[in-house]
Amino acid sequence: MIPRYTRPEMAAIWDPQTRYRIWFEIEAHAADAMAELGIVPAEAAKTIWAKGKDAVFDVARIDEIERVTKHDVIAFLTHLAEIVGPEARFVHQGMTSSDVLDTTFGVQLARAADLLVADLDGLLAALERRAFEHKLTPTIGRSHGIHAEPTTFGLKLAVAYAEFSRARARLVAARKEVATCAISGAVGTFAQVDPRVEEHVAAKMGLSVEPVSTQVIPRDRHAMFFATLGVVAASVERLAIEIRHLQRTEVLEAEEFFSAGQKGSSAMPHKRNPVLSENLTGLARMVRAYVTPALENVALWHERDISHSSAERMIGPDATVTLDFALVRLTGLIDKLLVYPDNMKKNLDRLGGLVHSQRVLIALTQKGVSREDSYAWVQRNAMKVWGGESNDFMALLKADPDVRAKLSDAEIEAQFDLGWHLKHVDTIFRRVFGRS
Amino acid sequence: MIPRYTRPEMAAIWDPQTRYRIWFEIEAHAADAMAELGIVPAEAAKTIWAKGKDAVFDVARIDEIERVTKHDVIAFLTHLAEIVGPEARFVHQGMTSSDVLDTTFGVQLARAADLLVADLDGLLAALERRAFEHKLTPTIGRSHGIHAEPTTFGLKLAVAYAEFSRARARLVAARKEVATCAISGAVGTFAQVDPRVEEHVAAKMGLSVEPVSTQVIPRDRHAMFFATLGVVAASVERLAIEIRHLQRTEVLEAEEFFSAGQKGSSAMPHKRNPVLSENLTGLARMVRAYVTPALENVALWHERDISHSSAERMIGPDATVTLDFALVRLTGLIDKLLVYPDNMKKNLDRLGGLVHSQRVLIALTQKGVSREDSYAWVQRNAMKVWGGESNDFMALLKADPDVRAKLSDAEIEAQFDLGWHLKHVDTIFRRVFGRS
Amino acid sequence: MIPRYTRPEMAAIWDPQTRYRIWFEIEAHAADAMAELGIVPAEAAKTIWAKGKDAVFDVARIDEIERVTKHDVIAFLTHLAEIVGPEARFVHQGMTSSDVLDTTFGVQLARAADLLVADLDGLLAALERRAFEHKLTPTIGRSHGIHAEPTTFGLKLAVAYAEFSRARARLVAARKEVATCAISGAVGTFAQVDPRVEEHVAAKMGLSVEPVSTQVIPRDRHAMFFATLGVVAASVERLAIEIRHLQRTEVLEAEEFFSAGQKGSSAMPHKRNPVLSENLTGLARMVRAYVTPALENVALWHERDISHSSAERMIGPDATVTLDFALVRLTGLIDKLLVYPDNMKKNLDRLGGLVHSQRVLIALTQKGVSREDSYAWVQRNAMKVWGGESNDFMALLKADPDVRAKLSDAEIEAQFDLGWHLKHVDTIFRRVFGRS
Amino acid sequence: MIPRYTRPEMAAIWDPQTRYRIWFEIEAHAADAMAELGIVPAEAAKTIWAKGKDAVFDVARIDEIERVTKHDVIAFLTHLAEIVGPEARFVHQGMTSSDVLDTTFGVQLARAADLLVADLDGLLAALERRAFEHKLTPTIGRSHGIHAEPTTFGLKLAVAYAEFSRARARLVAARKEVATCAISGAVGTFAQVDPRVEEHVAAKMGLSVEPVSTQVIPRDRHAMFFATLGVVAASVERLAIEIRHLQRTEVLEAEEFFSAGQKGSSAMPHKRNPVLSENLTGLARMVRAYVTPALENVALWHERDISHSSAERMIGPDATVTLDFALVRLTGLIDKLLVYPDNMKKNLDRLGGLVHSQRVLIALTQKGVSREDSYAWVQRNAMKVWGGESNDFMALLKADPDVRAKLSDAEIEAQFDLGWHLKHVDTIFRRVFGRS
Repeated sequence: MIPRYTRPEMAAIWDPQTRYRIWFEIEAHAADAMAELGIVPAEAAKTIWAKGKDAVFDVARIDEIERVTKHDVIAFLTHLAEIVGPEARFVHQGMTSSDVLDTTFGVQLARAADLLVADLDGLLAALERRAFEHKLTPTIGRSHGIHAEPTTFGLKLAVAYAEFSRARARLVAARKEVATCAISGAVGTFAQVDPRVEEHVAAKMGLSVEPVSTQVIPRDRHAMFFATLGVVAASVERLAIEIRHLQRTEVLEAEEFFSAGQKGSSAMPHKRNPVLSENLTGLARMVRAYVTPALENVALWHERDISHSSAERMIGPDATVTLDFALVRLTGLIDKLLVYPDNMKKNLDRLGGLVHSQRVLIALTQKGVSREDSYAWVQRNAMKVWGGESNDFMALLKADPDVRAKLSDAEIEAQFDLGWHLKHVDTIFRRVFGRS
Repeated sequence: MIPRYTRPEMAAIWDPQTRYRIWFEIEAHAADAMAELGIVPAEAAKTIWAKGKDAVFDVARIDEIERVTKHDVIAFLTHLAEIVGPEARFVHQGMTSSDVLDTTFGVQLARAADLLVADLDGLLAALERRAFEHKLTPTIGRSHGIHAEPTTFGLKLAVAYAEFSRARARLVAARKEVATCAISGAVGTFAQVDPRVEEHVAAKMGLSVEPVSTQVIPRDRHAMFFATLGVVAASVERLAIEIRHLQRTEVLEAEEFFSAGQKGSSAMPHKRNPVLSENLTGLARMVRAYVTPALENVALWHERDISHSSAERMIGPDATVTLDFALVRLTGLIDKLLVYPDNMKKNLDRLGGLVHSQRVLIALTQKGVSREDSYAWVQRNAMKVWGGESNDFMALLKADPDVRAKLSDAEIEAQFDLGWHLKHVDTIFRRVFGRS
Repeated sequence: MIPRYTRPEMAAIWDPQTRYRIWFEIEAHAADAMAELGIVPAEAAKTIWAKGKDAVFDVARIDEIERVTKHDVIAFLTHLAEIVGPEARFVHQGMTSSDVLDTTFGVQLARAADLLVADLDGLLAALERRAFEHKLTPTIGRSHGIHAEPTTFGLKLAVAYAEFSRARARLVAARKEVATCAISGAVGTFAQVDPRVEEHVAAKMGLSVEPVSTQVIPRDRHAMFFATLGVVAASVERLAIEIRHLQRTEVLEAEEFFSAGQKGSSAMPHKRNPVLSENLTGLARMVRAYVTPALENVALWHERDISHSSAERMIGPDATVTLDFALVRLTGLIDKLLVYPDNMKKNLDRLGGLVHSQRVLIALTQKGVSREDSYAWVQRNAMKVWGGESNDFMALLKADPDVRAKLSDAEIEAQFDLGWHLKHVDTIFRRVFGRS
Repeated sequence: MIPRYTRPEMAAIWDPQTRYRIWFEIEAHAADAMAELGIVPAEAAKTIWAKGKDAVFDVARIDEIERVTKHDVIAFLTHLAEIVGPEARFVHQGMTSSDVLDTTFGVQLARAADLLVADLDGLLAALERRAFEHKLTPTIGRSHGIHAEPTTFGLKLAVAYAEFSRARARLVAARKEVATCAISGAVGTFAQVDPRVEEHVAAKMGLSVEPVSTQVIPRDRHAMFFATLGVVAASVERLAIEIRHLQRTEVLEAEEFFSAGQKGSSAMPHKRNPVLSENLTGLARMVRAYVTPALENVALWHERDISHSSAERMIGPDATVTLDFALVRLTGLIDKLLVYPDNMKKNLDRLGGLVHSQRVLIALTQKGVSREDSYAWVQRNAMKVWGGESNDFMALLKADPDVRAKLSDAEIEAQFDLGWHLKHVDTIFRRVFGRS
């Protein structure tokens, strides 16, 4: 989490003030529930709310206390007592630090997930708009980086749309994984705290109740959360790499928007580099990197150890902030992406019609030629184009005695019709967008 | 995937014969659909089934052909033509290798997921049985490896049960992610193959239709699948480490079953080592390791490259076989785990009652002592026990002037009641198992 | 990199001001070399040094310019021109941004490595001191968490010393990997810059010359650097986990220093938790996590892409700051570690002498009993102690008819001599420390 | 480790027969040393060698015994006793299984490293040959995938040569890390075995003595080994990706050798795909993936646990076999790589001379134009070419009033001389190869 790659919306979730605010709310809701159960005086709960509701917590003061106590929650409670007064002794009754910390982490991750889902909605909207814009813009499909058969630029974006729709569904599931509340005491037995306190706080904080905890909320939940972020980041990387490929000098079918005043290179004034998508590639590596410590955090010792804590203090903000930034950057990139249909057409025609080789192959087999022979006939002509001997695949086929014995010129020409490749674009769009 | 850690059930899914069988089924179902659409003769489709249905594919022969063609699907189709005869030219019409390969991978991963879910059902049954057996077996709960407060051994197993229930739900979701079928041709445009062929094959193979593919099924699906396996493995590791801890010489609250004839150490005849759970720890590391390449496989170039293939040839079998083996081993381990309630009791009593310190703290605050003073009074007595000065925390408290000024001997004694910690075990069991 | 886990010494290396200072020095040294070669006026080089040497660069101003140019080096050069005046046009002649950026990264990583090596020297000193202090403090050696045979606490620390000596040598090698300078121009051909400029700057900045670069310094160097940090972190984790084990309630052979005023738990006043070593475990996870993006950064496209940059802006500071903090924390922990020889002795005696089983086994084979029979005889007595039937392994052996037929009581007793296990401690210390 | 990606040379190192052979040698050398020390009869040591030297160990029989003893070394020793007879009781005296296992692993990894170093020598030879072949073959250097400035294809290969030279040095260092011998007994104290036995076995097996072990050889050594393999794999990936880029349809500057009979695509007969380099990309992902478990294996509990074992049974063979296969495949690929200098020239000229923009920029500043103005003048002309308005950058410059005011036509033309970019190729070759 560095300022350069941080949006304030997500950073705010991880701000100390936000954290202490959530801590306060958990403690105050718990006090309400305890008051309701007759465990603490109703007046005490009221006072806690009255004094704390609008308090701005003094982060420096809390840090100062922590330097003595070496315990962050105790430091906060001490500061809270300074604000609330003697009624503060009814705060945190029978609770343990992790009740507060883990439930807070749940709230923060849930809010972070909400932001990420909103980011995805923005990205999906941009992808949909551009996909329909270019639904029928022909472009060459490539496998192995080699021209394969025609497709459309809209289909490329539909692929991304479908992928990020899955990403959205995964994030919603991941949010559910971590949005739980545990107020279960020292080892999760509710020895000193009534389970109804947990239920009350959960409801108030918009969380579900953790069925069984062991002082801590089990870390398989968080592992699943961060693993999901890693998968979403991998999808970001995929689209970023697509754009980097399209912007290559020799390809130049699309280009990142290049603002006035921008300099591509300090040394080479002619350059326009896909720096945003390269940047996204690197950011994706980071979000993916955080999956490993999250997986290692699961196997805490017995009812808990605190080894996960230092890792989570980093990956909690780092993973969510970085993915949030990446998604928003990607959205802007897609939104303003410069698309060059003419270059797409030029590239498409580049191999002298070679991209239609499969259609010719099928036409031959339909005339009764064995698959092996058909393949051999087509390949020998294709290789001439590939090798630079000719740039007119159709002419070669028409001149090939084996081929012409089976296919007329008109039949050969029919295989070179681009429309053939676009006839199911609508079908696919309906599948992906529910409309075409 | 090495024999030592492989169960035949899972290995069978990855057997070449199984793979070729699935390839055949996909091709034959596709031929049916094409016959129905009038693209290939109905007789051809029938012949393909008739000749291929009970064929045993000659793996060595296919390998031999592949050495020439350097293409596995073409090698198979050539061999299939040897079996089916001239009608074979109607096989694979308009399809591309990835249509077969990726759909097959989907079938294999779905079957693997089924096996893993069944493994989890076995594990959950074992955990539930042992959890109820030890529902009220008291044991010390530990945080940071340090005695905290009492819990029960049944609760420890309930924690594992809840965690593996989540693992099961995650696996079911992960199965759904990858159980898709794509028969969409060279770059996913259905240029040479009707979308209805895909729908037919999907239905017949028990898969859902991939909404949009690009020759390949998008790899974010597989990344999510392997990431999920990694999270499940992390949960395996957690339970394995719990057992390793419980079997430590100084703890010895539970122990792996030790069969007659088994030797713990070639040098030290007295040893009984938790080798199964240590083994599971290592296996979990492997399953987690496969997450990274799965994440890196997502960003294929353009409509596809084949960099994912070599990685998947390894992690497909390796991850599923290893996790399957681990889950079954863990199930046996839990099923036969030797549990020592007497040792649990002994350890529980070890700190001279220190584990009740929180209850005393709360009792003091309820008498109006400030939280800070209560904490200080309890801590100063606790530290004497910790330091070895005394082994009777209760006696120390009774002798402490500040404490005795607030709590009578009877009140102090009441805080040391073990039952206090067990009163909500039923509540938790009902949450986890739906019964108590 | 969060304040909580950051030491100012390491943070300073990554400070913007430090970075701009290094940028300036590289540019100014390059100007010197160019002046010497007659490429720029000698006066210009002098002016650059004169104006820039003591300048404080205005970070906010540079950021402001960067918002327009979207290029950090150009922003800096523009600001430098504001400081230096018209002579600034001789700065950066024929150079490319990466010449500055990558050489700077080399300087920063080299300085970071120096700090880490110094950290290790501190740690090694602490380990050596404590190792000699406890050279002959007997303690039980454990394999699989199970008592094996006696060792000494000093040997445990000698093991750590040897491991961190290796860590030190690895870091020195890793430093050498990254401490290179490249001033080779746009694609590394020295088209616009003389190789002697690179040689001059390298010498002045304490770096070696990069033999061949491609605008960027090759990232395999950095991958090796961060991989090495990951291995060092793994060693930190190993020692941290050893301490966590030793502090377990049932073991309590050593303990982290516990300062006055410290609170172990907000709820349980009796607790003293190994929080520092748990913290180190988590920090180690993070340093290890950064290895993966560093490995992924190697395969840049062609002569360079900038995908590594965002990742390195994070892992550069994060990995070095976190490892630095961890090493210093570990040093303090070892330095002040509370060691309890009495508890070690108590644990050692816990198994009724079972830890001597191998010696009895060997004594029997030396009397001509087959290895298999010896093993069986010893094991059957050992299992009685293990199972709790007896707590006196020696008595059992003396009463075993097979054993007593081969070994006299005196011979049996001789096998229980602790000194037997300590006789080579000096040998090992001499190997590790060069003295005993 | 799957047959498809395995070379027999490396597989042989991991063969059970090889493993048992090494086990035997360690035990027999240890017996020699013990005989020399008078611990076992000299005759016994002789008999062990005599009976075992040429024995073929019965792997099935050992497996059978292990199914009962659940301990592989004991199973082997039992089988060895069947071969050697009663003298076998002098085998393994005072040793522990790990003495054999870990020293064997050291031998295997050292042999694997030797093979990998030999692979690298082959690769370096191929790179050197092709580098000199194309030392002056001009090609465009690309940053961000965008044309930057000219370089030569030989320089590209020199970059790879330098990188794999570093890889070789790293592997030699990594080999040294793991080539150690430990025969130190149950917890590494030499209680039952004389350190001179270790010294003797180490010398005979070509290993160095492990200064201090704890039953096991410390796993930081192995972590460093596998981390190094991961870095080497990352370099493989880099070169593979370079080739994939060069083979792209639009670029086609180089191409993997395409054998007669090879089929690029089952559906598209025209395709020639870079499948080997894509395959290498995937294999590199796997070798890199094994770094994480190797790092996690370091923190074994106390004097050892066995969690590393299952992971190492996989990554030992998998990482070395896969990297060996990849290096040999890469060597063949480089050796037979089809290089197309004409296409390189065509691409180089593609941007109408834009690649010379930096030289013009510098020429302007040398005429006294400020850097900022120069940049603006050059950029405004460059953007016209970039945008497709013109394809003749030189003509645009000549027509630009600001530019022509400072540079004559001849001066402008001089900036477009390709030789300018090649003048230091020899310098670089001498740095990299020691000759030019």
